Amino acid sequence: MRVLGVDPGLTRCGIGVVEGVAGRPLTMLGVGVVRTPADAEIGMRLVAIEQGIEAWLDEHKPELVAVERVFAQHNVRTVMGTAQASAVAMLCASRRGIPVALHTPSEVKAAVTGSGRADKAQVGAMVTRLLRLAAPPKPADAADALALAICHIWRAPALNRLQQAHAAARPSRIPATAPVRKVPR
Amino acid sequence: MRVLGVDPGLTRCGIGVVEGVAGRPLTMLGVGVVRTPADAEIGMRLVAIEQGIEAWLDEHKPELVAVERVFAQHNVRTVMGTAQASAVAMLCASRRGIPVALHTPSEVKAAVTGSGRADKAQVGAMVTRLLRLAAPPKPADAADALALAICHIWRAPALNRLQQAHAAARPSRIPATAPVRKVPR
Repeated sequence: MRVLGVDPGLTRCGIGVVEGVAGRPLTMLGVGVVRTPADAEIGMRLVAIEQGIEAWLDEHKPELVAVERVFAQHNVRTVMGTAQASAVAMLCASRRGIPVALHTPSEVKAAVTGSGRADKAQVGAMVTRLLRLAAPPKPADAADALALAICHIWRAPALNRLQQAHAAARPSRIPATAPVRKVPR
Repeated sequence: MRVLGVDPGLTRCGIGVVEGVAGRPLTMLGVGVVRTPADAEIGMRLVAIEQGIEAWLDEHKPELVAVERVFAQHNVRTVMGTAQASAVAMLCASRRGIPVALHTPSEVKAAVTGSGRADKAQVGAMVTRLLRLAAPPKPADAADALALAICHIWRAPALNRLQQAHAAARPSRIPATAPVRKVPR
């Protein structure tokens, strides 16, 4: 599967595209950052992020967009910009019918380093190793976006099983035991 | 001037359109709420809000969009959704080249009631009086959106003077005293 990871931010919005399946070597298809000037008007910054993300979606046509889940309690100063940039990323994906998955920073760190409290350097080192890159992607936002995509590819099988279990447990409108009626030709 | 006010929210996004100038009776051109189901996927909710706001912009063609400024410290539970809905509103306006103005809840309350700590009922009562409506607009989000638009119309002259003062004080690339060079025909 091809996943586009987004580490949302107004000043630097990290983007990373990874292709692969759990249990096999992964391939990096692209990595970069959408930047907007800190002194620009907020609406114009959101338009620039929208245009940047649209260009990445056009080029890589991902099957899924993985976005970092933003929490209100972290970094109160920057959290609003992060929430707004993440909204633009989710909007761009959903408008094209591309499913969106959210992962918390600790889920991402745990997926790529084994520890939910790993630091940026550790995440960068593991992303470099897992994608067989010559050097860690810079800036850290770009590496984080790749880590998000890797995290999703690895967690997807477990998440799918969970979703199926939830769906099976939920009372559906058509009972699962209802006989399949064949439509005569 | 015609102002579209947005009281951002994922479940209920209040919209109100007011026309007028400071010091003259104001006219309400429209009021309503864009709703999205709480159990829908977040990306799809943002797409629904975008479509709703686009329809309001198409219909009323405002000169300015006034959006409530969201603070991280208030209502931590709902602040992320509010920030995301406000991002969509600002994006829709800026994409069309419509200027965006942000006002805090206390600025809005102070503008329409005289007190920055007025309650919802007081804001609703003043909106009803100022726009000469038969009854307070429901739900409160719709009344708040109208209050935002009124606040902007009343604050705009002062804000413009401030902006002009800032621009005059800032060293510009072309000195204000530079002679105007006439291009010969």
